[in-house]
Amino acid sequence: MPRALLFDVFGTLVDWRGSLIDAAAAVGSERPEVEWSAIIDDWRRAYQPAMDHVAAARDDGRAPWRNLDSVQGDTLDHVLAEHAIDLSVDQRRELIGAWRRLRPWPDTRDGLDLLRAKAITATLSNGHLALVVDLLRFAGLRMDAVLSAELASSYKPNPAVYLRALELLECDPGEAMLVACHAKDLAAASALGLRTAFVRRPREWGPAGGDQPPYGLPGLIVVDSLIELADRL
Amino acid sequence: MPRALLFDVFGTLVDWRGSLIDAAAAVGSERPEVEWSAIIDDWRRAYQPAMDHVAAARDDGRAPWRNLDSVQGDTLDHVLAEHAIDLSVDQRRELIGAWRRLRPWPDTRDGLDLLRAKAITATLSNGHLALVVDLLRFAGLRMDAVLSAELASSYKPNPAVYLRALELLECDPGEAMLVACHAKDLAAASALGLRTAFVRRPREWGPAGGDQPPYGLPGLIVVDSLIELADRL
Repeated sequence: MPRALLFDVFGTLVDWRGSLIDAAAAVGSERPEVEWSAIIDDWRRAYQPAMDHVAAARDDGRAPWRNLDSVQGDTLDHVLAEHAIDLSVDQRRELIGAWRRLRPWPDTRDGLDLLRAKAITATLSNGHLALVVDLLRFAGLRMDAVLSAELASSYKPNPAVYLRALELLECDPGEAMLVACHAKDLAAASALGLRTAFVRRPREWGPAGGDQPPYGLPGLIVVDSLIELADRL
Repeated sequence: MPRALLFDVFGTLVDWRGSLIDAAAAVGSERPEVEWSAIIDDWRRAYQPAMDHVAAARDDGRAPWRNLDSVQGDTLDHVLAEHAIDLSVDQRRELIGAWRRLRPWPDTRDGLDLLRAKAITATLSNGHLALVVDLLRFAGLRMDAVLSAELASSYKPNPAVYLRALELLECDPGEAMLVACHAKDLAAASALGLRTAFVRRPREWGPAGGDQPPYGLPGLIVVDSLIELADRL
């Protein structure tokens, strides 16, 4: 049994895509002709490269770290321009803020409570701390601690993020487990010696499905829900 | 109504003195003649000067920041030597670990839940994050976030600690309130523009009583419990 469980948030605990498509349709309700799902998917695809860029620029001393709201503001501007859609400053701010109001998957709340009875639970999100706090309050999710890439001034999958979480929780790598629905996140954690659990989220990208389990990680657990994970541990 | 409530922990939420005296009596049960309360009080009195020393040495670049377990190990050795009491390494470790098993005051759990329904709640403790996480789990206390002086590599009442908490919660000073039973902590927060609430803990130091409200802080709220604070806000 791990002493601490670290949870990826976007996709693993909450349905960003369904929630953001609904938020975009509400924000842009005067334009029923727009296919918001394509914009949300493009926005989400722009997210990891933009964060990688910020993390690398910070590591090289070229630019200070910036939080997710700031990164998402840039990528949203870019995606809207590519789709030739104009939204007001307030509408853009509303969409960026919608990342704090994402719906949990049906098993998330109960699964987290079952797991919290067995181990220390903490987020380990690329969302900054204030965003994750708002999101957990909105979704009614209880965690023992809110950890974020912000506390390492970096972004996953940069090793600094996982190492900072281990340091703050006073865990050796083998005492902690990352729970995520993304292969890349789990591979990075496993390379540092953390244990890993992959949660299938087949609706993460809507009709396009979800990520497949990473290949060849020693001891990887694969489950369909957090409740199944609590049973397995 | 403040948007975020920051809580001091030792004394404000939990009874360190009663809990530690019980822990010391159990650890030193083969020595019924020792007056453990005097040792615990001296240990607690050594705590703030030792932390101030670490914070100042770190600010001046003379020495790296050290967490509370490390600081308390030093002060415990010193206090035991002064009282001419010898404890084994394991007994000392047990006593230091007892700071993770402090009992909440009778109003703490319900008061925090009432307050969490009104505002974001977070610890702002000189205990490091792993210690506070263990303590909240032991005491069954729910917080939206665990913030610690560790995240500023300093100790209260150094301004860096309060400013780091505001930054992480994306709060202007006037949007946050520090809740504490110690005048010095509240005065430091107030000087930075935070709102303040003093909770009377007349049993904090046992027969010696508790701290008095700080003098002259603008807008200070004084209450006898967290439940009263929830009523007042």
